[in-house]
Parts: sequence; structure tokens; C-alpha cells
Amino acid sequence: MPPWFEEESLVVDDPNPVLEPAIAARLKRDEAGLVPAIVQQHDTGEVLMLAWMDDEALRLTLTTGRATYFSRSRGTLWVKGETSGHHQYVKSVALDCDGDTLLVQVDQVGAACHTGKRTCFFTQVQEGAQVHTSTQGDSL
Amino acid sequence: MPPWFEEESLVVDDPNPVLEPAIAARLKRDEAGLVPAIVQQHDTGEVLMLAWMDDEALRLTLTTGRATYFSRSRGTLWVKGETSGHHQYVKSVALDCDGDTLLVQVDQVGAACHTGKRTCFFTQVQEGAQVHTSTQGDSL
Repeated sequence: MPPWFEEESLVVDDPNPVLEPAIAARLKRDEAGLVPAIVQQHDTGEVLMLAWMDDEALRLTLTTGRATYFSRSRGTLWVKGETSGHHQYVKSVALDCDGDTLLVQVDQVGAACHTGKRTCFFTQVQEGAQVHTSTQGDSL
Repeated sequence: MPPWFEEESLVVDDPNPVLEPAIAARLKRDEAGLVPAIVQQHDTGEVLMLAWMDDEALRLTLTTGRATYFSRSRGTLWVKGETSGHHQYVKSVALDCDGDTLLVQVDQVGAACHTGKRTCFFTQVQEGAQVHTSTQGDSL
């Protein structure tokens, strides 16, 4: 065994990393083990999207600084921007008063929305039938 | 029958008001028929809380201008501020790109949180165990 082996294995050999128990104890998850995460641009206050996190997504978000979510449709974790390059660099994470919602403040690279718009909330809903696609948040 | 009766009944006699079909068709509700609603102070951008709406809560929010939600714990509609006086006057409602989340911009009277704080998101979550109650959003 080479002399560096043991040291290196100390770094990579964490077979079961878990979310810090003090945080996990505060989370109130839904039946699927998920918590909604509101994603907000940290400096402008713009609400970009809503995603979902399980414990592991929250742990990765906190430890890597890249927003990581749980895809309910695919049943897997995903790092935001992994394929699009539209990463979210995490500035802060807050939990609400009853522990069932997260607020993730990020620095969003490019578009948050898969449509290419800056934010997912570009459709205004108004009284009297009206669904109106805003010109704000146009494709980047 | 007094002469005004028929007119008056035209006003009150809407036995089954429903959410505008053009809006209802866009909503993707969860198994309980609900959609999460992110609530944001319209001018400062502060995210205040997350609540849930069914079709009727959204209809009332749009038609009365007072934010109205569905309480998952009590199983009933509630008008925000009805008992506390901490009303939310609705400025705009937007739907996200896939129709499963609402963003409600409001003018919040007083505290949004039942704890008396301005926002529900006063607990910072940080890497390394840390759950820290912010001094921001102190009781009003």
C-alpha cells in the first residue's frame, strides 16, 4: 500500500454523508420526503423559481455552494446548471417558521427558467379570465 | 315580492362561482388539489411566506384583492389577516412556466409571520450544523 493511500482515503471515504442532524431535525418534509425551496436572486430580490429538496439536496447545496434539487419527475438529484451552464451560486439558505419551506438566495447565471427566460414567473394571472405572458423576463 | 327583490337576487345569487376556466386550465395542482403560493412584498422584494391555494382561494384572491389561502391543517379557506389584522393587499399574481406554482405580490400590513416577525424566513441554515435565528425581521 503506498504511503499516501491512507490519507487519501480519509478524504474520499465518507460512505454515508448525512445532513447535519441539527438541521435535519428542523425540517418538515412532505410524504415524499421533500421540502419546497423558493429561489430568489440575492441582490435584486427577483423570485426566480420554485424547486424541491430532499435532505441530500440540501446537504449538497450547503456544502458545495451550488444549488442542488430533487427532480420529482425524474426521481433524481440535479445540480442547477449542470447541463445548461445556468448555475446558481448559493448566497444563503433560510428555513421558515414551521420548518416546511426553504428560501435559497442565489446568484443566478443567465436564465433560471428552462424556457430561456430569467424567471419562471412570467405569466400574469388577472381577474376576468386573464392569463397574460409578460414581456419582462424575456429570453436572455 | 318587493320590486327590488329580483335585482338584488341577481347580485347575490351566484350559487356556484368558479375560477375562470382559462386560468383553471393552466393550473397543475397536487394530489390534494393545491398549488404553492410564494408571497412577496411587492416593493421591497422581501419573500414573506409560502402558503397554498386551491381554485377557490385563487378566485377569491383575484376577485377580492385580499390574499386568501387554503389551510392544509384546518382544511378550510382563510383570508390572511382575518383574525390578526395583518392583511395582504394583492398587487399581482403570476403563474410559473409549468403552472404548478403561484407568485403573489402583496402589500403586507404588519407581520406576515404568526410569530409576529415580518417574514417567516428568519432562520438561517448554514453548513456545519448551523441553524441561526436572524435578527432581521424582528417582531413588529
